[in-house]
Amino acid sequence: MPDTFEDLKLRLRQFAIDRDWEQFHSPKNMSMALIAEAGELIEHFQWLTEEQSYQLPAEKREEVRLEMADILIYLIRLSDRLGVDLLQAVEDKIALNERKYPAEKVRGSSKKYTEY
Amino acid sequence: MPDTFEDLKLRLRQFAIDRDWEQFHSPKNMSMALIAEAGELIEHFQWLTEEQSYQLPAEKREEVRLEMADILIYLIRLSDRLGVDLLQAVEDKIALNERKYPAEKVRGSSKKYTEY
Amino acid sequence: MPDTFEDLKLRLRQFAIDRDWEQFHSPKNMSMALIAEAGELIEHFQWLTEEQSYQLPAEKREEVRLEMADILIYLIRLSDRLGVDLLQAVEDKIALNERKYPAEKVRGSSKKYTEY
Amino acid sequence: MPDTFEDLKLRLRQFAIDRDWEQFHSPKNMSMALIAEAGELIEHFQWLTEEQSYQLPAEKREEVRLEMADILIYLIRLSDRLGVDLLQAVEDKIALNERKYPAEKVRGSSKKYTEY
Repeated sequence: MPDTFEDLKLRLRQFAIDRDWEQFHSPKNMSMALIAEAGELIEHFQWLTEEQSYQLPAEKREEVRLEMADILIYLIRLSDRLGVDLLQAVEDKIALNERKYPAEKVRGSSKKYTEY
Repeated sequence: MPDTFEDLKLRLRQFAIDRDWEQFHSPKNMSMALIAEAGELIEHFQWLTEEQSYQLPAEKREEVRLEMADILIYLIRLSDRLGVDLLQAVEDKIALNERKYPAEKVRGSSKKYTEY
Repeated sequence: MPDTFEDLKLRLRQFAIDRDWEQFHSPKNMSMALIAEAGELIEHFQWLTEEQSYQLPAEKREEVRLEMADILIYLIRLSDRLGVDLLQAVEDKIALNERKYPAEKVRGSSKKYTEY
Repeated sequence: MPDTFEDLKLRLRQFAIDRDWEQFHSPKNMSMALIAEAGELIEHFQWLTEEQSYQLPAEKREEVRLEMADILIYLIRLSDRLGVDLLQAVEDKIALNERKYPAEKVRGSSKKYTEY
């Protein structure tokens, strides 16, 4: 059976402990490592058109897939360091977004909430 | 019962469809939105010491929690647009990292793999 | 007469000294502040097509202009903290790029050097 | 005599024209390339303490210097594509900051303006 989100958090924590890396994993440093990975992700897309970005060649798609994993790894590590329940946070944010962006009001527009 | 990771993907997809926002959600654009949120996250930590970054005041902690949710939301959306299984990607990346960084070799050092 | 690049470095240094802010301006923190501003810049472009990104409405263009200023301000501050001559660095990098990407070899292609 | 800021803009424009790369250099894409470089910069600092970030070993310092050049190169290119006078933008932003952060009010505090 595949790992759950909670399993992954524990595995990543153990991975850091086994290497004595928790000393480097302050929330500040985690936020840096996370954005560095997000920068590597964006590098794959910066010269592509939007259309091309849907149709990645197999090798590039695999690189992108692993960059996405890196981002989630640091996000899970950060959530562990701060004691944040990530899935609950997403549910709370979706609820907030449903109030901020009622479907009938914003349909087809990318304007930010503040512009309404 | 709380949503699973898969539930969240479907809810976020429906959220975008209901607002006719899928047209804006190309992988290229998702990679931009994701890093913009990662930038908002880092803004919370940039003037803090590493020690302070563990002890966020309640209000700031809540803002950080919701920024983390935003990052995961865009990451899930991107995975949906590219047909990537995020949790599987994390498992695959952990397996790669276990080979790249054997615990006995890297213990207590933050040097990158390439420097070994 | 307008300020030169060197003038700006000295003005920004004095600005920080006057506010006793140099204590926060470690190179590490400067790299974070810089990317946070780059994230605010990207937020202006994330939902635009490439075509639209050339034709910013006046108000948005002014916001983009000031985000660009923020990025340069932190870059100049970082260069000051590290004792780096930024304009010389750009000249050196252009020289490197001219060797890495000979015009006749790369014309019209966005492939990275490593792919050649 | 070294290049001025204006010289660099023209050299970088010619560099792109010679390689038929202007087609890739939309403001949207430039904002992506810029933050990707800012991500490479941050990668050099993410595991260092603030103290260590002042004392980079020679080889790392040279890599950081060239990452800073890359950021400025894309920022200059973006300013060229949008017709923005970068140095003027910095002067205007400094003037705004002087009004927002009066020295006597903010001395020694890193709180953001909005918190005052």
